[in-house]
Amino acid sequence: MTQLSPTVELAAELISRRSVTPEDAGCQELMIARLEAIGFKIERLPFEDTLNFWARRGDAGPVLCFAGHTDVVPTGPEEQWEFPPFEPELSKGMLCGRGAADMKGSLAAFIVAIERFVANHPDHGGSLALLITSDEEGPFINGTTRVIDHLEARGEKITWCLVGEPSSTDKVGDVIKNGRRGSLSGTLRVRGIQGHVAYPHLVRNPIHEAAPALAELSAEVWDQGNEFFPPTSFQISNINGGTGATNVVPGHVDIAFNFRFSTEVTADNLKERVRDILNKHGLDWDIDWVLSGNPFLTAAGELVEASQEAIRAITGIETELSTSGGTSDGRFIAPTGAQVVELGPCNATIHKVNERVSMRDLDTLSDLYENIIARLLLQ
Amino acid sequence: MTQLSPTVELAAELISRRSVTPEDAGCQELMIARLEAIGFKIERLPFEDTLNFWARRGDAGPVLCFAGHTDVVPTGPEEQWEFPPFEPELSKGMLCGRGAADMKGSLAAFIVAIERFVANHPDHGGSLALLITSDEEGPFINGTTRVIDHLEARGEKITWCLVGEPSSTDKVGDVIKNGRRGSLSGTLRVRGIQGHVAYPHLVRNPIHEAAPALAELSAEVWDQGNEFFPPTSFQISNINGGTGATNVVPGHVDIAFNFRFSTEVTADNLKERVRDILNKHGLDWDIDWVLSGNPFLTAAGELVEASQEAIRAITGIETELSTSGGTSDGRFIAPTGAQVVELGPCNATIHKVNERVSMRDLDTLSDLYENIIARLLLQ
Ligand SMILES: [Zn+2]
Ligand SMILES: [Zn+2]
Repeated sequence: MTQLSPTVELAAELISRRSVTPEDAGCQELMIARLEAIGFKIERLPFEDTLNFWARRGDAGPVLCFAGHTDVVPTGPEEQWEFPPFEPELSKGMLCGRGAADMKGSLAAFIVAIERFVANHPDHGGSLALLITSDEEGPFINGTTRVIDHLEARGEKITWCLVGEPSSTDKVGDVIKNGRRGSLSGTLRVRGIQGHVAYPHLVRNPIHEAAPALAELSAEVWDQGNEFFPPTSFQISNINGGTGATNVVPGHVDIAFNFRFSTEVTADNLKERVRDILNKHGLDWDIDWVLSGNPFLTAAGELVEASQEAIRAITGIETELSTSGGTSDGRFIAPTGAQVVELGPCNATIHKVNERVSMRDLDTLSDLYENIIARLLLQ
Repeated sequence: MTQLSPTVELAAELISRRSVTPEDAGCQELMIARLEAIGFKIERLPFEDTLNFWARRGDAGPVLCFAGHTDVVPTGPEEQWEFPPFEPELSKGMLCGRGAADMKGSLAAFIVAIERFVANHPDHGGSLALLITSDEEGPFINGTTRVIDHLEARGEKITWCLVGEPSSTDKVGDVIKNGRRGSLSGTLRVRGIQGHVAYPHLVRNPIHEAAPALAELSAEVWDQGNEFFPPTSFQISNINGGTGATNVVPGHVDIAFNFRFSTEVTADNLKERVRDILNKHGLDWDIDWVLSGNPFLTAAGELVEASQEAIRAITGIETELSTSGGTSDGRFIAPTGAQVVELGPCNATIHKVNERVSMRDLDTLSDLYENIIARLLLQ
């Protein structure tokens, strides 16, 4: 067997732990042991079914924190996997297994990066920290958001936060995320009056009444986006109306929709505009709203610059700043005033069967992390 | 116990037979025994799970036929019934039980009417006939339509057909149906491209694309109706799109709809106009069409006249001609050239729990049937 790099070896050890959300399956204790060995102070912060920890080396500011999660999404049908998802395999230069790219590879790359950095610079300035949760892929109630509450309550601040989410597209470092769109969901019920299709004068068909309003919502331009954000988008994910019987006009129709929104609008603004359109069409309606996260943005600053320069120095790539994709735990960290950047491996296989990551990319990623740490903490 | 009229007594006997579609539960043999006793020739015509019979008294034309069904719709939760649905009860002048109004009361009223008529006029002109099925409330595949095919195959024609469906609204005889609208159903699928709501440029949302077309279909004026028919109506009964997940734009949306249409349009005409609207909106779509029945109409003629006059003579009511309501087996009989009129008791409780019919109305109905027979066959 070939000699594995320390990063790949640790990533494989983490993959072999079956940590489907909210399980941690020993991943955090493995990391904690390595961190304690190099002088980190550990604070375990379990909440309900979720394990979290906060680790810090140094008492001074500024604080450079690495944020990540040990949980992984479910495997789907295991028989569709080329290799068993929790038995890490090396194949064609790739490390294969659930969590390889999202985000056990990043966790390993960061641990190894700080081990090297601390060995070379035991008396670095500022502080190094880690904020690790086992509930990023799940309901995100007892994870990062509660650790942040805990830190805020005692006035402990993160200056720069590097999130290990798989940000890259084709080559490691080609894209970093300096923000994310907001996500606002609604469940709309439009009510009518149920009855038999043969007696149309006795019914008010909620599907008929909703249709022009849905057409208008679908066609609405919510904003133009801006330098960092694409235009706000509205998507209906589910629509259900009807009793199943084909001769009955239903009493209501239910519509689930989602906004991914830029910093050009606010959640309240979007809610108001939806209300106005529904009322304009004279509908009898109500909506349950869920705001999963406001948009956040780190437009510029030392963390973006250090990341760009590290990527240029090590890979020669002019990295792209992006705010695309789903939400991330960055939405809980950015509101504290921290600069937040996401940098991780390529995301082509995340949340799919046969998740995998390039072993060479993991080593590059570890070098990138180390280089960013050095730029920020050695001044 | 009060003395029951022959009509109410026979109706109660029929109700006590649990003949949920396509069961007949002995109803037809009970009727056949009574008909054979007064000189009818019986032809039993079972098809698959359905019992039917054709009974005729006389060889000459014209043929006055009574059409009806022995099956009833399911009871729903029996504990919601005031009385057990298959144990006929008399309460406050009403005969209560499943099928009392639809249409075992009518069957009894007709049997008793012809018994009286034949006793008084054993040598009546023309022929009296009955076309009875046990599958009117069900899939209507092996019932009236197959008996009609059988009669047509040998060239046997019905001149006038009296259908016992509960046509009346407030008083027996206040409404007769001289036709019915057509019923055309479609199951529409509109296809898009599935994907994650966070990547709107990679999806084509079929709900968004369908909405303006559904708005236009809902707003379309299909015709203005005419003297006998209300305007054609279009109703969406069911719409379903979405994977259940709120972050996924579905690949397609399914829409079930129904036309109730007048004689001012044809099924082909409606199909073409739906196609044009869907294509105008650039949709990727297909439709499964089901034509349940073309509209039929007996605008005028001896049967309508005889019914109007009989109702006037016996009840003093100026009856209303109507084509409203669901479909009926008249749609299979009218295309043979027969005049078709539906006349039966009040329909307020049909297909509901606590179905019931006025005992006095049943006796009036029997008188009406006898009077109509006399007007048509004694000339
Ligand atoms: Zn992740
Ligand atoms: Zn009926």
